[in-house]
Amino acid sequence: MMATIGAKLTVVTPGIVEIEMPFSTTLTQQHGFLHAGVIAAALDSACGNAALSIMPENAAVLSIEFKVNLLSPGRGARFLFRGSVTKPGRTIVVADAQAYAIAADEETKLIATMTGTMMTIVGREGMEG
Amino acid sequence: MMATIGAKLTVVTPGIVEIEMPFSTTLTQQHGFLHAGVIAAALDSACGNAALSIMPENAAVLSIEFKVNLLSPGRGARFLFRGSVTKPGRTIVVADAQAYAIAADEETKLIATMTGTMMTIVGREGMEG
Amino acid sequence: MMATIGAKLTVVTPGIVEIEMPFSTTLTQQHGFLHAGVIAAALDSACGNAALSIMPENAAVLSIEFKVNLLSPGRGARFLFRGSVTKPGRTIVVADAQAYAIAADEETKLIATMTGTMMTIVGREGMEG
Amino acid sequence: MMATIGAKLTVVTPGIVEIEMPFSTTLTQQHGFLHAGVIAAALDSACGNAALSIMPENAAVLSIEFKVNLLSPGRGARFLFRGSVTKPGRTIVVADAQAYAIAADEETKLIATMTGTMMTIVGREGMEG
Repeated sequence: MMATIGAKLTVVTPGIVEIEMPFSTTLTQQHGFLHAGVIAAALDSACGNAALSIMPENAAVLSIEFKVNLLSPGRGARFLFRGSVTKPGRTIVVADAQAYAIAADEETKLIATMTGTMMTIVGREGMEG
Repeated sequence: MMATIGAKLTVVTPGIVEIEMPFSTTLTQQHGFLHAGVIAAALDSACGNAALSIMPENAAVLSIEFKVNLLSPGRGARFLFRGSVTKPGRTIVVADAQAYAIAADEETKLIATMTGTMMTIVGREGMEG
Repeated sequence: MMATIGAKLTVVTPGIVEIEMPFSTTLTQQHGFLHAGVIAAALDSACGNAALSIMPENAAVLSIEFKVNLLSPGRGARFLFRGSVTKPGRTIVVADAQAYAIAADEETKLIATMTGTMMTIVGREGMEG
Repeated sequence: MMATIGAKLTVVTPGIVEIEMPFSTTLTQQHGFLHAGVIAAALDSACGNAALSIMPENAAVLSIEFKVNLLSPGRGARFLFRGSVTKPGRTIVVADAQAYAIAADEETKLIATMTGTMMTIVGREGMEG
């Protein structure tokens, strides 16, 4: 899915990650802005990868739930999604993420936020993250 | 975006809509299940179209925020998303939606739920829904 | 807290519970309606007790997160909160709840909804639910 | 309600507010920690007052919805709730708030977060904030 929308994990540090994505007309809703589902997908990946970055090596991450607030239209030349861990935990990790639209002239605007609840999955075959 | 993920609006009645989508390997996350972002996109469309179905003719709908609970892995031959209006309002419409995975033998499983807050937009040129 | 706001668990069946509460002027916000926090408290108790009703006997329940949509002003002679389990699970239980305002003439109105994510806690001393 | 739980607005600047509250045994759940509903009430007040601080003078604020993540048990000598505006808007204001438990020795711990969607209400008699 991340490949389908052209998103790439560009920064990974313990507890904080960044994902970048160019604008594409295949990802828009009826008004020509980035679709809420694409924003949610990339924010969820940002939260999930932030959570994964502080989990044990053999762990996988599962999104239990997330909430997205759509603040401004998803209009830009490219998009940046930053995820960070708000509360680490053995089983449950809470992460927050922000989505930014970046114009051709590098003007940057916060367009959406997510709070996500992630679960650590250990020892289920075929699930290693 | 709905075209990108192969989703189609199959039922539209005042206050209730349904969207159907076949399984596709381009829409999966790292474990082979339907990606949370695709589920969110389709649930958001279900909520948005349910809200739109009770709005005035010249109105457009804008998602302000939504919350998704991912209940079971998105594994199935096809998927059904049902959206319904929980609270109609002049400016704000609250809608709920359910996502179901349907196996080849028609066994159906609830895989995710959404509550979304939608806003009625009237009279902004180029925004008619 | 449930005692402070005068709420009582009136129905408990496996997966579904009801809580009732009379109106009290000590529980209102600045406009004389039931305060959002009281609604959240009672909805959270409804979700938590619904989850607890399907957990093993020695388990306790912990709310990880919840989302509330406030649909109509909390104006009524008494209030009913119904919680039900949407997705049972060994560790995580997802529950939904509705809040209703009931007028003196028994007219009933949906005033708020909650989706909550609950966690089963087993074997932590002093935490039995 | 804020009086009932002993909460006081201690800081109000445009876009950021703080609420403080002492611990009280009347506000606890079954394990002796601050009840989730009290945390939600105070966080909602923090979000609402932050939104109100940037609205026109004759406006009132209405919470449309909020999501709370409960991160750690509400155990402390007193509690601090900080609300700030994430996205100002003419009709819709999105605010975030954090809840901190402060021990007798001033050790401070993040115990909960909220994202809330607030609506500006102008010109409805009896609703001025």
